[in-house]
Amino acid sequence: MINVDGFLFAGIHAGIKQKKKDLALIYAADGAEFAAVTTTNKFGAAGVQYTQALLKKTNMLQAVMVNSGNANALTGDKGIQDISDLLTSLGQSLPKINMNNSVLLSTGIIGKHLPIKTMTQALPSLAHSLNTDATPFAEAIMTTDLTMKTSIKTLDIDGRSIQIVGICKGSGMIQPNMATMHGFILTNAEIPSSDLRSWIKDIADSSFNRITVDSDASTNDTLMLLASGKGSTIPPSRQAEFRALLKEVAIDLAQQIIQDGEGCTKFVTFTVDHALNQGDARAIFFAVCNSPLVKTAWFGENPNFGRILCSAGKIESSLVAEKVDLWMGPHLLVKQGAVVPMDKAILDAYMKNRDLTFRLDLNQGSERFTGWTTDLSYEYVKINAEYN
Amino acid sequence: MINVDGFLFAGIHAGIKQKKKDLALIYAADGAEFAAVTTTNKFGAAGVQYTQALLKKTNMLQAVMVNSGNANALTGDKGIQDISDLLTSLGQSLPKINMNNSVLLSTGIIGKHLPIKTMTQALPSLAHSLNTDATPFAEAIMTTDLTMKTSIKTLDIDGRSIQIVGICKGSGMIQPNMATMHGFILTNAEIPSSDLRSWIKDIADSSFNRITVDSDASTNDTLMLLASGKGSTIPPSRQAEFRALLKEVAIDLAQQIIQDGEGCTKFVTFTVDHALNQGDARAIFFAVCNSPLVKTAWFGENPNFGRILCSAGKIESSLVAEKVDLWMGPHLLVKQGAVVPMDKAILDAYMKNRDLTFRLDLNQGSERFTGWTTDLSYEYVKINAEYN
Repeated sequence: MINVDGFLFAGIHAGIKQKKKDLALIYAADGAEFAAVTTTNKFGAAGVQYTQALLKKTNMLQAVMVNSGNANALTGDKGIQDISDLLTSLGQSLPKINMNNSVLLSTGIIGKHLPIKTMTQALPSLAHSLNTDATPFAEAIMTTDLTMKTSIKTLDIDGRSIQIVGICKGSGMIQPNMATMHGFILTNAEIPSSDLRSWIKDIADSSFNRITVDSDASTNDTLMLLASGKGSTIPPSRQAEFRALLKEVAIDLAQQIIQDGEGCTKFVTFTVDHALNQGDARAIFFAVCNSPLVKTAWFGENPNFGRILCSAGKIESSLVAEKVDLWMGPHLLVKQGAVVPMDKAILDAYMKNRDLTFRLDLNQGSERFTGWTTDLSYEYVKINAEYN
Repeated sequence: MINVDGFLFAGIHAGIKQKKKDLALIYAADGAEFAAVTTTNKFGAAGVQYTQALLKKTNMLQAVMVNSGNANALTGDKGIQDISDLLTSLGQSLPKINMNNSVLLSTGIIGKHLPIKTMTQALPSLAHSLNTDATPFAEAIMTTDLTMKTSIKTLDIDGRSIQIVGICKGSGMIQPNMATMHGFILTNAEIPSSDLRSWIKDIADSSFNRITVDSDASTNDTLMLLASGKGSTIPPSRQAEFRALLKEVAIDLAQQIIQDGEGCTKFVTFTVDHALNQGDARAIFFAVCNSPLVKTAWFGENPNFGRILCSAGKIESSLVAEKVDLWMGPHLLVKQGAVVPMDKAILDAYMKNRDLTFRLDLNQGSERFTGWTTDLSYEYVKINAEYN
């Protein structure tokens, strides 16, 4: 049972997918202040374009409908019209709603129109199943995810409980840029959307913008903050603490995406340390963590760390080869750009761990970038060769 | 039998690898004018650093020794000293040689020192086996390559034959940047190194800089042009023709690398057309052709072309989604950024071909970039999980 005051949730099987839940709804009858960041992909899906338009028109959302199984991307003007038509139909099943305060987000296959008839027929039962428990919602937004992803924190303000609930989906097509696949962070706190909007980029940059499964920023990535205002306001003295909790929830969700990365057998924490600037640290992180050669070596539990330096060195940056150290867990593998002789049995033993930690020390400046990634397995190829 | 006047060749099993040929030599007793471009990777191998130093000191090479099975990368000062020691030892087995005009290039695993003793012992038999046939050389430079890669052209100048012979290796860790894995283009023409050096970048940019297997620019990429001068000079009226043949040989070799890409089952020709500038066209080509989601869909013969647009749209560029068309062979899949309804059976049938052709038309300018790439298969994962 996961709940947040001021919100009702639903998740049902509408028939977009063959068997699994595929249509979900968050409903805030009295509205919720909101902020959102969406993918920077040039082919942003219809739901992303719709969300961007809403951000300019309103501070308040009442209904966030989400479908899985179809991304509603590359669908042109019809994709936008389909959203509008579905939200209008949804309005006929909800007690009090202003359709200007609702949105439909989508994930799934790109390049197909939504099955409007099937979805429209399911809307009354979607509305009918609204409930305080967010679990069916968290299930219905999943696509290739194997696990449901939620994160819960509470903060006590003068004896009243502030709830923070994060829910997300994501497993493949994961290298969010300014946002993630679908992430929703809900709270009962009373916060103006202006605060949420000033915080959301930092939250995304600390969490979802630090992960990659396979280098592909999706057409549908969206992170949304929603505050129902049913609980306390956050006094200025506690705001830093509250923001830190929002960030913790986002990081927890982002790490859960990596733990459930398509076909993954490893959870890798990779740090680029002592860089001259954040841009270089970030770029090197992604060059390494998207390298198929690095990722397949991790899958093979193969301490072929030369590939890590090769991928770090292939991009333009301020990196100077002769200054670079590479640490794997407690082991120094490369010092000042040259290999350190090491017992292979020790390296082999370390690679057997599910959780691997690497630190590439550039020994140049004071900037650090830590992020999380997966290996690349047969199962990843299978999932994505077959997905249709 | 592959030969070029003015050059002798050798390729033997020295014991760096368990069974296969692993040590190779090109020997031009009277010297050959040379040009080279090498990887831009920051962790350029010892052989790459050695080549760069030679380019500044001499226009002439006599011996190009190449080993496979060990990249001599991340090997610090010792890596350079090892090359110098091995070349000095080689000099004792060669009739007339200036050791300042020789080099050792390497490919194979990164982060291990060369097995100097094993290699030194093999040098007399390497020198002894020198012969006019380049075939053993072409075999001995292979690593995970399944096929030997050569390309031969001739040009008749006033009844005398100008030979152009290309030899290369490469299969994985392939996204050359300014150069390739190891490529050697030899000719008997009499050409000053200044001409070779002014042409080589254009040759690399037209061929090896247009391919990717897995996005990783190696630490060892080197392309070398060698001219023995045993044949004619090229009169000014025939120079354009001669340069075009050099380029054809380079393109042929680059395509052979893709045909033999690690684990590949598809040969994909991908064009980004009508871009505003070459930089964008090139960047979009690599964003698409390095996407694991695009490549696994090709492996699965799955016409999930939404992934192609997703990966094209994920990077910063001048692309405007609403202008983009996507063609697969003769089929228009996406028009002005929206999907074109199409019989899935037609798409499925096209995907069964080994050779696939895509054209992403940005409909903005007049720049075009065509390159070649592979799919991503179980076998790629297997090769690179196990390689050690």
